[in-house]
Amino acid sequence: MVPDPLSSMPKVPDRAWCAAADAADPLAAFRERFHIPEGLIYLDGNSLGMMPKDAPTLAERVIRGEWGDDLIASWNSAGWFDLPVRLGDKLAPLIGAGPGEVVVCDTTSLNLFKVLNAALALRPDRGVLILEGSNFPTNNYIAQGVAAASEGRVEVRLCEKDEIAGAIDERTIAIAITQVHYRTGHLHDMAALTALAQRHDALAIWDLCHSAGAMPVDLAGCNADFAVGCTYKYLNGGPGSPAFLFAAHRHQGKAAQPVTGWWGHAAPFEFEPDYRPQSDIRQFLVGTQPIVSMALVEAGLGVFLAADMAAIRAKSTALTDLFIRLVETRCSGHGFRLDSPREAQDRGSQVSFAHDHGFPIMRALIAAGVVGDFRAPDTVRFGFTPLYLRYTDVWDAVERLVAIMERGVWRNPEFQQRTAVT
Amino acid sequence: MVPDPLSSMPKVPDRAWCAAADAADPLAAFRERFHIPEGLIYLDGNSLGMMPKDAPTLAERVIRGEWGDDLIASWNSAGWFDLPVRLGDKLAPLIGAGPGEVVVCDTTSLNLFKVLNAALALRPDRGVLILEGSNFPTNNYIAQGVAAASEGRVEVRLCEKDEIAGAIDERTIAIAITQVHYRTGHLHDMAALTALAQRHDALAIWDLCHSAGAMPVDLAGCNADFAVGCTYKYLNGGPGSPAFLFAAHRHQGKAAQPVTGWWGHAAPFEFEPDYRPQSDIRQFLVGTQPIVSMALVEAGLGVFLAADMAAIRAKSTALTDLFIRLVETRCSGHGFRLDSPREAQDRGSQVSFAHDHGFPIMRALIAAGVVGDFRAPDTVRFGFTPLYLRYTDVWDAVERLVAIMERGVWRNPEFQQRTAVT
Repeated sequence: MVPDPLSSMPKVPDRAWCAAADAADPLAAFRERFHIPEGLIYLDGNSLGMMPKDAPTLAERVIRGEWGDDLIASWNSAGWFDLPVRLGDKLAPLIGAGPGEVVVCDTTSLNLFKVLNAALALRPDRGVLILEGSNFPTNNYIAQGVAAASEGRVEVRLCEKDEIAGAIDERTIAIAITQVHYRTGHLHDMAALTALAQRHDALAIWDLCHSAGAMPVDLAGCNADFAVGCTYKYLNGGPGSPAFLFAAHRHQGKAAQPVTGWWGHAAPFEFEPDYRPQSDIRQFLVGTQPIVSMALVEAGLGVFLAADMAAIRAKSTALTDLFIRLVETRCSGHGFRLDSPREAQDRGSQVSFAHDHGFPIMRALIAAGVVGDFRAPDTVRFGFTPLYLRYTDVWDAVERLVAIMERGVWRNPEFQQRTAVT
Repeated sequence: MVPDPLSSMPKVPDRAWCAAADAADPLAAFRERFHIPEGLIYLDGNSLGMMPKDAPTLAERVIRGEWGDDLIASWNSAGWFDLPVRLGDKLAPLIGAGPGEVVVCDTTSLNLFKVLNAALALRPDRGVLILEGSNFPTNNYIAQGVAAASEGRVEVRLCEKDEIAGAIDERTIAIAITQVHYRTGHLHDMAALTALAQRHDALAIWDLCHSAGAMPVDLAGCNADFAVGCTYKYLNGGPGSPAFLFAAHRHQGKAAQPVTGWWGHAAPFEFEPDYRPQSDIRQFLVGTQPIVSMALVEAGLGVFLAADMAAIRAKSTALTDLFIRLVETRCSGHGFRLDSPREAQDRGSQVSFAHDHGFPIMRALIAAGVVGDFRAPDTVRFGFTPLYLRYTDVWDAVERLVAIMERGVWRNPEFQQRTAVT
C-alpha cells in the first residue's frame, strides 16, 4: 500500500507539515544515493538528473580498468558490445516494456528519426504524422526532416493537446506525442490516444523524455507501438547519456529503418557485403556506441531497482501540489500565473509558472541556490524528483522565492543578461 | 627535418638495431603519456587506442565536478554545448581541415548517413554512389540504406581498389572511400581520386577511420568535399568515443541533411516551431551529445598537440616495414602470406597477413601478451601506433609469434573457440 501524502496535505501547508511528510517518506533513503551539493535545492532534475554517488566509481572502473588495462578485450569481457540490449532490458520494467523490446543507444532525436521512418514503412499508403506543435521542438524538426525527405508523400500536422484526437483519421501514419509536455508538464492519456490511433489503424509513438523514471509508464498495457526517450533527466544517466528506443515485439524485423549501420546487421562480425537487418530490437542499432557515457546509465538505472514507481508517483504529485499551493499563497500578488494543469493527475513531475519577468527571476533564484530553468518566452519551470527531493526542500525553495519577490532582487542588472540554458 | 629510420633499416634487422632506433626516436617520450599495462605489446591501436594517462583525471573532473557539483549550469560554464565545435576545431589540423569545418558528434555510421544524403541533395540529377566493396561493411550498409530510401533513384556501386577510377562518370553522385582499408591497410590516393571525381563533377567523401592520427591527411589540399571518421582508434578518445564529420566551407548551409534535430537548428534555444538549419558546420549536428565520452576525446587529441605528424608517419612506415621483414624472415615457412601492400608508401599504419589458421594463431598471440586482431575469413591484423610503440616491441612481438609457430602452441584447443571481436 503506497502512502498518499497529497490526501493529507492542508490547503496551506506549513514547514512543520513538510518536516512530518519527510519523516514519513518511504523514499527518503534514496536521497543518500545521490551527490547533493551543500545548500543546493535542485529543481531541474527534469533537465539533467543529479549524479548517483556510485557513478564516479563506475566510470573509474570502465575507464581505468576496462579501457586502460583490458583494452580491446573489453568489447567481450566487459560486455561493451551488448550494453545497448542489457541496459535496455534493465530500463524496460520502468516503462512497462518486456525483455528484448528496448535498446539504449544514440540520441532521442535520432531514435525518433528511426521509428518515424519505421512507421512510414509500416503504413506505406498513408501520409500524415501528428505531433504536438508546442512540445519540445526537436521532435517537430525531426518529423519535418522525415517529411522533407519523403518528397511530398508525408505531411507533418502540428496539433495542440485538445486537437490531437480529432486530427487522427485514415490518413494518419502515426501520432508521435511526448507524454509529458516539456514546458507545461501536462500529461497525455497514453492509453486513450493509443487506442484511438489504433482504431484508425495508425501507429502510436510515445516520447517518454519527461515521464520515464518520473511516473509509472505502461507501454505494454497501452499497446504502444514505438517509444523513445532520454536517460539523462529522471533516469540520472549523466549529461547527454545515450537515449532509449522501444519497439513492440510485433514490429521487430518488420519495420525497416533507414540508418542501416553495422550494429543493426544480423551478423555484424561476418562482415557481409550486403545489409541484412537483425530480426529483433537490435535492428534499431546503428554504429559503435559511446561506452563510457553508456556505462554510466547503469548507475542511474541501478537506483531504481529498489524503488517503487507507484511511491515515486505519489510523492511526485504531492511535491508538485505542495509547490503550487505555496507559490500561490505565499507569492500571491507577485504576478505568477500557473502554466501547468491544476489537477495533479493531469501533470507530470514538474510545475511551470508564466511570469512577465520570468528570466531574471530564475537567474535570481539560481543565485540563491534554487535551480530551476527558464523556457522562452516567459516560463519558469521547476522539476521535482522524488528520489532526492524533500518536502522541506520545496518549502525552503519557495521561501527563497518569496524573499526575491518581496525584496525585488530580480531587478538587479546581473540577472538580466541572457545566456543559453538547456 | 624528420628522421627516416626506414632508410637505414637493414634487410634483416636484429634487436640491437631496434634498440638503437628506439634510442634515436624523436617520438619516444610520447609513450609516457599513455597507460601501458605491464608486459603488454599492443598492436591493436587501430581498433581501440590506448588510454592517455590524463583521461581518468579529466573524466573525474567532468563527472564529479561538472555533472555532480555544477549540474545543469555546466552546459554553459563548462562549455558542454560547444564541445562538438570546440573538439572539431582541435581535431581539424590533424586532417588538414580549417576552423569551423569539423564537428565531433554521433557515430561514423550516422555521420556518413548525413553526408551521403547531403551529397544526394547537391547532385539531384545523378544516381550512383561508389564505395569500395571490400572495405569496412558499415559504410556499404549505410549507403545501401540511403539507396533503399531513395526509392529507385540511387544505386550503390561496390568496386575494388583498381576499379574505382574507371567507375566514376557523369552519373556519379559521389565516391565514398575509406582512405586506408580496414583489413589490408592499403592506402588510396586521396588527391588523385578526389580530383578525378571532381573532373566528373562528382563529390569526394573520405572515411578517415584508419588514417586520422596515423598519418598526415590533407583534406583542404586535396579539395575534399566531405569526410567522416572515428576518434577511438589512432586518436585515443576512448571506447566508442564520438565520431567526427568534415564539410568543406563551400558546402555548409547548402547541403541539406535529413536528420534535422535541434542541435542543428539555427537558433536551438528559441524553440521555434519550424526547422531552420544552421548555415555553418553545426547544420550536421542532431541531438544532445554524450558529454562524458565526448570530453574524453580531448584527452586523446591533447597528446597530438605536441606531435609532428610527419614524424608519426615516418615512424609508422618504419614500424610496419620492420614487422613485415621480421615475420617474413623469422616465420618463413609457417604459412603467412602478406595481405598488405609491400611498399610502405602504399599502406596505412597496419600490416595484415593471411593465414589458414589465423584465428587460433591470434588467440595464442593474445594469450602471449601480443594483442592484434582477427578479421574473417583468415586475416591476422596488426596496428602500429607510433606514439606508444617501440621498435623493440615489434621485435619482441615477432619473437613471441616465432615461439607460437615453432612450438605449434596455436593448436591448443583453448585457442579454437570463436568469439566476437571488434
